Amino acid sequence: MTRDSAGEPGADDGDSVVYDLAPDCTADDVETDRPYLAEINGIVDYGVFVDLSDSVSGLVHESVLEGTFAVGDELVVELESVRENGDMAFEPVDIDDYSVEEVGHDYSLTGTHRLEDNLGEQIHLEGEVTQVKQTGGPTIFHVSDENGVVPCAAFEEAGVRAYPAIEIGDVVRITGTPEHREDSVQVEVEGLSKLEGEDAEEARERLEEALEARAEPHEVAPLIDWPAFEKLRPSLEEVARLLRRTVLEGRPIRVRHHADGDGMCAAVPVQIALERFIADVHEDEDAPRHLIKRLPAKAPFYEMEDATRDLNFALEDREKHGQQLPLLLMLDNGSTAEDVPAYETLAHYDIPIAVVDHHHPDPDAVEDLLDAHVNPYLHDEDYRITTGMLCVELARMIYPDLTDELRHIPAVAGISDRSKADAMDDYLALAAEEGYDEDRLQDVSEALDYAAFWLRYNSGDQLIEDLLQIANGDEARHRELVEFFAERGREEVDEQLDAAMPHLEHETLDNGAHLYRIDVENYAHRFTYPAPGKTTGEIHDRKIEETGDPVITVGYGPDFAVLRSDGVRLDIPNMVSELEAEIAGGGVSGGGHLVVGSIKFVSGKREEVIDALVEKMAEANIDEALSSAAPIDD
Amino acid sequence: MTRDSAGEPGADDGDSVVYDLAPDCTADDVETDRPYLAEINGIVDYGVFVDLSDSVSGLVHESVLEGTFAVGDELVVELESVRENGDMAFEPVDIDDYSVEEVGHDYSLTGTHRLEDNLGEQIHLEGEVTQVKQTGGPTIFHVSDENGVVPCAAFEEAGVRAYPAIEIGDVVRITGTPEHREDSVQVEVEGLSKLEGEDAEEARERLEEALEARAEPHEVAPLIDWPAFEKLRPSLEEVARLLRRTVLEGRPIRVRHHADGDGMCAAVPVQIALERFIADVHEDEDAPRHLIKRLPAKAPFYEMEDATRDLNFALEDREKHGQQLPLLLMLDNGSTAEDVPAYETLAHYDIPIAVVDHHHPDPDAVEDLLDAHVNPYLHDEDYRITTGMLCVELARMIYPDLTDELRHIPAVAGISDRSKADAMDDYLALAAEEGYDEDRLQDVSEALDYAAFWLRYNSGDQLIEDLLQIANGDEARHRELVEFFAERGREEVDEQLDAAMPHLEHETLDNGAHLYRIDVENYAHRFTYPAPGKTTGEIHDRKIEETGDPVITVGYGPDFAVLRSDGVRLDIPNMVSELEAEIAGGGVSGGGHLVVGSIKFVSGKREEVIDALVEKMAEANIDEALSSAAPIDD
Amino acid sequence: MTRDSAGEPGADDGDSVVYDLAPDCTADDVETDRPYLAEINGIVDYGVFVDLSDSVSGLVHESVLEGTFAVGDELVVELESVRENGDMAFEPVDIDDYSVEEVGHDYSLTGTHRLEDNLGEQIHLEGEVTQVKQTGGPTIFHVSDENGVVPCAAFEEAGVRAYPAIEIGDVVRITGTPEHREDSVQVEVEGLSKLEGEDAEEARERLEEALEARAEPHEVAPLIDWPAFEKLRPSLEEVARLLRRTVLEGRPIRVRHHADGDGMCAAVPVQIALERFIADVHEDEDAPRHLIKRLPAKAPFYEMEDATRDLNFALEDREKHGQQLPLLLMLDNGSTAEDVPAYETLAHYDIPIAVVDHHHPDPDAVEDLLDAHVNPYLHDEDYRITTGMLCVELARMIYPDLTDELRHIPAVAGISDRSKADAMDDYLALAAEEGYDEDRLQDVSEALDYAAFWLRYNSGDQLIEDLLQIANGDEARHRELVEFFAERGREEVDEQLDAAMPHLEHETLDNGAHLYRIDVENYAHRFTYPAPGKTTGEIHDRKIEETGDPVITVGYGPDFAVLRSDGVRLDIPNMVSELEAEIAGGGVSGGGHLVVGSIKFVSGKREEVIDALVEKMAEANIDEALSSAAPIDD
Repeated sequence: MTRDSAGEPGADDGDSVVYDLAPDCTADDVETDRPYLAEINGIVDYGVFVDLSDSVSGLVHESVLEGTFAVGDELVVELESVRENGDMAFEPVDIDDYSVEEVGHDYSLTGTHRLEDNLGEQIHLEGEVTQVKQTGGPTIFHVSDENGVVPCAAFEEAGVRAYPAIEIGDVVRITGTPEHREDSVQVEVEGLSKLEGEDAEEARERLEEALEARAEPHEVAPLIDWPAFEKLRPSLEEVARLLRRTVLEGRPIRVRHHADGDGMCAAVPVQIALERFIADVHEDEDAPRHLIKRLPAKAPFYEMEDATRDLNFALEDREKHGQQLPLLLMLDNGSTAEDVPAYETLAHYDIPIAVVDHHHPDPDAVEDLLDAHVNPYLHDEDYRITTGMLCVELARMIYPDLTDELRHIPAVAGISDRSKADAMDDYLALAAEEGYDEDRLQDVSEALDYAAFWLRYNSGDQLIEDLLQIANGDEARHRELVEFFAERGREEVDEQLDAAMPHLEHETLDNGAHLYRIDVENYAHRFTYPAPGKTTGEIHDRKIEETGDPVITVGYGPDFAVLRSDGVRLDIPNMVSELEAEIAGGGVSGGGHLVVGSIKFVSGKREEVIDALVEKMAEANIDEALSSAAPIDD
Repeated sequence: MTRDSAGEPGADDGDSVVYDLAPDCTADDVETDRPYLAEINGIVDYGVFVDLSDSVSGLVHESVLEGTFAVGDELVVELESVRENGDMAFEPVDIDDYSVEEVGHDYSLTGTHRLEDNLGEQIHLEGEVTQVKQTGGPTIFHVSDENGVVPCAAFEEAGVRAYPAIEIGDVVRITGTPEHREDSVQVEVEGLSKLEGEDAEEARERLEEALEARAEPHEVAPLIDWPAFEKLRPSLEEVARLLRRTVLEGRPIRVRHHADGDGMCAAVPVQIALERFIADVHEDEDAPRHLIKRLPAKAPFYEMEDATRDLNFALEDREKHGQQLPLLLMLDNGSTAEDVPAYETLAHYDIPIAVVDHHHPDPDAVEDLLDAHVNPYLHDEDYRITTGMLCVELARMIYPDLTDELRHIPAVAGISDRSKADAMDDYLALAAEEGYDEDRLQDVSEALDYAAFWLRYNSGDQLIEDLLQIANGDEARHRELVEFFAERGREEVDEQLDAAMPHLEHETLDNGAHLYRIDVENYAHRFTYPAPGKTTGEIHDRKIEETGDPVITVGYGPDFAVLRSDGVRLDIPNMVSELEAEIAGGGVSGGGHLVVGSIKFVSGKREEVIDALVEKMAEANIDEALSSAAPIDD
Repeated sequence: MTRDSAGEPGADDGDSVVYDLAPDCTADDVETDRPYLAEINGIVDYGVFVDLSDSVSGLVHESVLEGTFAVGDELVVELESVRENGDMAFEPVDIDDYSVEEVGHDYSLTGTHRLEDNLGEQIHLEGEVTQVKQTGGPTIFHVSDENGVVPCAAFEEAGVRAYPAIEIGDVVRITGTPEHREDSVQVEVEGLSKLEGEDAEEARERLEEALEARAEPHEVAPLIDWPAFEKLRPSLEEVARLLRRTVLEGRPIRVRHHADGDGMCAAVPVQIALERFIADVHEDEDAPRHLIKRLPAKAPFYEMEDATRDLNFALEDREKHGQQLPLLLMLDNGSTAEDVPAYETLAHYDIPIAVVDHHHPDPDAVEDLLDAHVNPYLHDEDYRITTGMLCVELARMIYPDLTDELRHIPAVAGISDRSKADAMDDYLALAAEEGYDEDRLQDVSEALDYAAFWLRYNSGDQLIEDLLQIANGDEARHRELVEFFAERGREEVDEQLDAAMPHLEHETLDNGAHLYRIDVENYAHRFTYPAPGKTTGEIHDRKIEETGDPVITVGYGPDFAVLRSDGVRLDIPNMVSELEAEIAGGGVSGGGHLVVGSIKFVSGKREEVIDALVEKMAEANIDEALSSAAPIDD
């Protein structure tokens, strides 16, 4: 005769407790060495079958039974064994006097971080629905709890939406079994219910609290000590928080960045930081690939064409994959009025926008359209704090483990944009510690320029990572590749300038500045490296070196001109406005910084526009402190 | 002792019937309470095993047996029970005197519409093979019967073609089991045979009859009462029939349409109607995505480049997926001689072509190449019946449930193409009932133009559906988006015209008409909205408004000119022919309507061509009734 | 009582052998009718359970047992039966006197070519790892042995790299079970170990030997007897060997070819030969699609943009699919200094490059960068041996069964490049045997040109195969399509020339040669067929026909000129060098053959460059043997 672990056989202990499983209890609720109230539901030669709950039943073998039994009789039993196929055997327990304790089904939640440990076992999960994808088979609910996001497959009928009332944003409780699927741990849903009223509120609060805590950016000391940066730090943390939260909420992120050295130094670290964070958060292995996409921008601002294309893709992904619409992250781009039409297009959809840029902003124009905006000009700093410098810190706030791979990046960014920030010395020193002297940094910068040109609108993830030497690439290849691309780039610049320089027109303006003009359409190769903007910049740099004097350089094509000046107090945005007003039918537009920029016009008015422009330049004051070493767009 | 349900124990009823299953009978042929002839094929301690057919056998337990038995003995039994694993138990039936009735295997067909109800059960299916896709695993035969199309998977050896003799177009009988597959209900094939001779003929007749019946377009009363439309109705029904039949036959459809407002008002309703019909017909959930593709055309006619690309994709899909070559549906495009080379290219492949267009057709050139052709000019009507108006009716003939989502579309189409059809008042009234006043319709039209420009060669399905507010989109977003796009579009037109208008050259022709010329290459922004065609049209409209007189406007670039005229009896196609003949080495080509069109030439002869053109214009008669408010291509 | 097959019951034969399975033996090692030493590990009512090895155990039924037993007792048994679920039953064998023989586990290897015959059975495999793809589920190791390449799936934990120490290039031994997967036979890995030391060396030697033997090109007699070809044959065999070896090693191949008739006649046969060889070698059905990609080149040389794109794709494929970086095969392209920057870019990665070209090579510039290089000029032959002629033989060396489909291709290649090789007569005769007379060949050549133009950068596999009539296409369609494309092409050439010819400028040079100049930008249609290169060539041909005299034709655009000459001893590469030196700021570059080529310059210096060029032409000697019927690039 078996005995209760709590008493001797035959002991009529009034303290004995017998447990009574609630109807919804499962095998998981049955513990060994514990007496349960059972009801006989069948009698066979070799024993009796008993029910402990709706789904828990088993055999009591005749060899351990004494007396006679009828279907419906109560019996106190405890678990003897569970066979591999789940069949349970019970033994009777000899207790006459006992009190009964109800046992409810254990609905305790298994966090998404513990699913691997509970494969094949029934678990419960509570979280917010972040994606609902109808496949031809099951409906896949992506559910985010305090710990991560997991796909949950509910099957109604092939291709038929399971739980059609459940939508993105609902807080749900799921009963199911975590299983390995080709690409992920996935919960096979056995039951799913939307939490309502107080339950929902509580869960939502709990989730929100956890989300907020997890969204909190890491506190990292900046790579260098730099007072100017401190002013921008809080708003940068705000972006880090927004991005981490976006990942936790399962919303995709689309990065658009300026396709130059600083832009890539900004975008690639943030991309990698987000990819790693996504991989940590999401059970679905493909999540990093599905949830973040980096793309160079075609123009120095967010063009309608890019915005239309981005919107179109986002809407298709929502339709096909039930994804949320993405957050748009603009890097080294996006602070200006030129971005407004594109932003306004997206504003009609649920697409948050965050910008980190160091180009001269038009805060009045863009502020209302942005969810976050970091720009040094908003804090009385300027373009010398490059976007790459900012974004290395942003990447570290998102995923601090990246730090060791990023120490040289701010220096590359600074060199690329010719930054004369106070911090450059420290950044250069930091890079030097990693083995990057100024020549090597210069090479990386040139190589990025060259690669960006040939990549056109491709992100070229691997190639750029090799050039930037992030994510533990092959050091030898990195060095050779940088050297080769830098050299090729310089050779092609030389070839371009060999063709162009003899056609440079020089005059000395009334204010004493040298003015150089070059027709880049007729005297430079088209559709090849370097593009007109860089060609003009290189000519300008050579002329400054030659003359040392105040220099203005104008590179013009049929309907555009690129402007650079050093040592002259130009105000290009103002000049453009004046030209627009003065030259009827000129179709003048454009902008940029004070002393560097570009201008567009209709080709039929080119001569008139440029002549008028030069006249204005001749009236500008000389101010040798002013340098065009600011970011310039091709 | 058990008893026959039909008699008392021991009753020797001479009328008793015992059933004898044919060797190919399966468990499905065994009915309860029915005596069957069985043969003993094994004797064990606990009973005897009996065979009822090649595949039906089971146990008769010793407890219900009396007497001794030898293998090979006959026994009359009836079904006692079927266990979950399919094992059958039989009981002997005490019948001495009976007649035997042969039972053939029930090959009754299960239509593709009843597969969901027969999951996991063996069924039979007859139909025509519409696609044969060899995967690395099974061979997938798509089989179309009277009710739909279902994929049937036959496995021979991984990657090896099962039933290699079976080809697209064969009529086959399949025995198999419907199962859920990731994206569809699929029949796992157990047997497949090609019907031959009379069987095939009968089946084919039956299928063809069903196909014809199902292909029949729905009879829908036109949205408005419009006598002119009635003339086109039969040929439009012919297109609806062809398209429905194409879907039923599992052939893909590729839609190419004019990338303007009317073109989208034509193509999108037809696309959605076809998608819904495909979803109804095909068991494969991905079928709508795989079987229809809408693409804007690059040019106002079907270019060789588009045709080559389409053909290339079609051939690849046939190779990779065993798909049939597609039907090409040209909408708001395709009626002219310019389309002929592209059509002739496709003519070498099995690619039917249907056209619904309202541009001035060259029936002699295209008729032989088309399987269906609807154009108002073929019925003494003209461009005022826009393609969008026609295609809304076409969509309704295909899938009438769409009607409520389409009531405003004909008015948008009409506004887009400035239609002065009699029907416009009714269409506007219909749209007004849906809340679309003329301003809003105008906005939708402008917004479509603007979106189409930035989408370039993307179909932009979701965005266009939001703009057209078809398929139950978000009303508020639709309104905001339309307003924003319309406004942006107008602003950009204004900017373009600000640049262009001062450069407009005016002269009064001998016939008294105002002629305006604008060099759109030199005095308008390039590569931006609006394109030269629309720029010219907008200038023209402003000048008509200003002058009210007969006006001709010519917008020219280096090697092209866009022409619009109001109130002048031009005959542009004729003028182009004359110029072609008169100007040697001019490379003149082009066309359009009488009073609106475009012309191409080699750039070195531009001046000569335009001068000659203007001379001809000066000789044209004034006819104030003539308006250029016809569709114009950019 | 059962008996040993080797003896009578009860026979105490001292010669009796009882086998003792090593602990790692599996059920596969147990043979019937053979006595094994077993140990009792459990006793139940109905018998005893015995162990023969760690994984081999079974029941001895009480009915065949005599005496009493204790757990741990030894027993000699032989296999009685194996049930479907794998359960084994044993019978005791009555042997008192016997010797024991150890049986090791049979690790004999099953070659990848015998996997289909061993589905579901455990096998062993040794080979080199050629690809390691981490999926979200298992890790897939592609393993190459002497017979082929097979994917082997090892599961550690979802998305976790199994056997992380194993890398591409390792030689491994795998124990596993071949199974059908959707697209392949795949081995489910049960054990995988890296061979080390001597084992590895032996295996590697064995594999290498087998690889070398299998990589050996087939010895095929050339289609025609042609002494000049014999000089190139060994180096062509070297390329065949390299390509076959590349396939055997599981490395992808990317083909870039000149987008003209000869280029397609070269690339398509090699592509098809490789596809078929890949299909033979690889168990994975998708391998041909994944491992070879043919792309037309944008330019007549390997542009940086193409190289960057190719590298980018290759790096992505490595990242996503664990593929090796590809081999680059340049066909009818790639021998010149212009290719060097692109080659140098790839040189930083493990990307071998092979070239088969017949354009005038710069061996000094490229040789160090190439793994194989075939060019008739390297063997004192010239462009008259076209790349298509060479590559038909190359394709046959790779996959000789293709021969019958390729007999007409060399003639098409020769006609396309106007080859005057001695071999042309034989090739024409060979083609004639296949039904291709010279007109038809000419048509195929024109049709290829025309299709290539409209396909732009698509490979157009199916369409080109239809035009070339390789791979058993539809003969009737081939004929119609060729005829139609050829006719269309000619019509469009005629249209182009109608526009251009009247603008031809003629002068007679001092050396008596006719010089024709045509401004193809201003007097030919742009962006349409034929492109400037072909337009110039067609004009040139007409003028030769008209005049019969020495003729030079220059077709120029804003920043380029295409040159053709017949009967004049030009040295274009030298002229370009001189112009580059003489014209400061001209940005002159270019090249080609002696008497045919192209030249680039900055558009502002066009007049000066062309005038200087013409001056040089006027000084050239007349030499009527010299013909421009060499390959010319558009």
